Amino acid sequence: MKTIVLLRHGESIWNRENRFTGWTDVDLSEKGIQEAYRAGETLQKEGFAFEIAFTSYLKRAVKTLNAVLDRCDREWIPVEKSWRLNEKHYGALQGLNKSETAARYGEKQVLLWRRSFDVAPEPLTEEDPRNPRFDPRYAEVPDRELPRTESLKETIARLMPYWTEKIFPALQRVDQILVVAHGNSLRGIVKKLKGLSDEAIVTLNLPTALPYVFEFDRHLQLQRDYFLGDPEEVKKQMEAVAAQGRQKA
Amino acid sequence: MKTIVLLRHGESIWNRENRFTGWTDVDLSEKGIQEAYRAGETLQKEGFAFEIAFTSYLKRAVKTLNAVLDRCDREWIPVEKSWRLNEKHYGALQGLNKSETAARYGEKQVLLWRRSFDVAPEPLTEEDPRNPRFDPRYAEVPDRELPRTESLKETIARLMPYWTEKIFPALQRVDQILVVAHGNSLRGIVKKLKGLSDEAIVTLNLPTALPYVFEFDRHLQLQRDYFLGDPEEVKKQMEAVAAQGRQKA
Repeated sequence: MKTIVLLRHGESIWNRENRFTGWTDVDLSEKGIQEAYRAGETLQKEGFAFEIAFTSYLKRAVKTLNAVLDRCDREWIPVEKSWRLNEKHYGALQGLNKSETAARYGEKQVLLWRRSFDVAPEPLTEEDPRNPRFDPRYAEVPDRELPRTESLKETIARLMPYWTEKIFPALQRVDQILVVAHGNSLRGIVKKLKGLSDEAIVTLNLPTALPYVFEFDRHLQLQRDYFLGDPEEVKKQMEAVAAQGRQKA
Repeated sequence: MKTIVLLRHGESIWNRENRFTGWTDVDLSEKGIQEAYRAGETLQKEGFAFEIAFTSYLKRAVKTLNAVLDRCDREWIPVEKSWRLNEKHYGALQGLNKSETAARYGEKQVLLWRRSFDVAPEPLTEEDPRNPRFDPRYAEVPDRELPRTESLKETIARLMPYWTEKIFPALQRVDQILVVAHGNSLRGIVKKLKGLSDEAIVTLNLPTALPYVFEFDRHLQLQRDYFLGDPEEVKKQMEAVAAQGRQKA
């Protein structure tokens, strides 16, 4: 049996503050670090032995991965990082509080930006210091590929080459792969793996640091997928993520 | 200017207990973790901006690297791991206390094992559970290349292909490289870079978590090398490492 485990990073400082993060490189909160270690302990107890791991260029993902590898005693495995696994780029919304944005633009518009498949928030201007073209970590990415904003559709489009050329083919030579990334980049992978519609994927809410396991036969056909955790607890966590875009009472 | 920084991992649990570690995958001590973060802070303050990092398959090196990248805000850079950067394999001595070994074999013999260039400790037997052939992390290394013990000469011999084919050539495409490894694998690199004799290299004692900076011109000729730290403090630390093989009074 072959396995890919998807893991959304632990709570970040901005998750906690309910702000649009996107490509902003915010750190894990203390709770997020603990979540990451706990995910690692669960994976270790369940006997996972990852042979390669993939993550994004953003520290909340990298550090979640480091915490998992620590608990699984797998610090030595190769880790590949790619900007293509980054979170959806939230354009001009990056840094804004979700409840405030809802109060300003209306809950409906925010939900559209957060949860529509092909509507992107306002883009960053070319001179905006948040523009990725100023960030040395993206120096080797051709400028035409660097987003100023993204819809979920665009996030998935830039993720897919990495998925089809790097991550999924690795399953031919190893049995267990770990991917630590973000709510929206992981949505892209889940959509691909399960053949979900554009409509279905926007309603999928991945909780932080909850391992999502995909099992394949030796022909790399998906056999089953499940979250590693108590089903009731999982449901509660998914509902909590979905509620983040609603205006605070 | 091009730069390579060599960094020996922070204190490990077995450094503290004064035991022969070699390829045993022991963790950092609490002091070692703090040392690693401090090294990261120093490098950050001095303005280093590493573009790629190399480390071994052993967690005390990987975790030291993670701590440095955390403090330097460079979690996103590529990290390459190789068994060739591992510590010298200490054969049958692995796990033994250095002072006890000195009492048993004599201080002179221990110094020979620790500090001679071409004398290796007794090898592990084929069936010894510590034999690297049983460790899944080395599954892809041809068995004839996996040591059962090593002299410093042998450590350097298995390190060199990685240095000449991977690490040093990376300096052609980037300006700043970080290598986090072990006392003896780093000796091999220093010997190569400075053209030291077999005799000279055995007397070089690298303190834990002290950045050792090598600067090159654009033709990759070495211009100068120095430790990032107070010279008096550096000297004291090097003497402390040298003293570890002596029998306790």
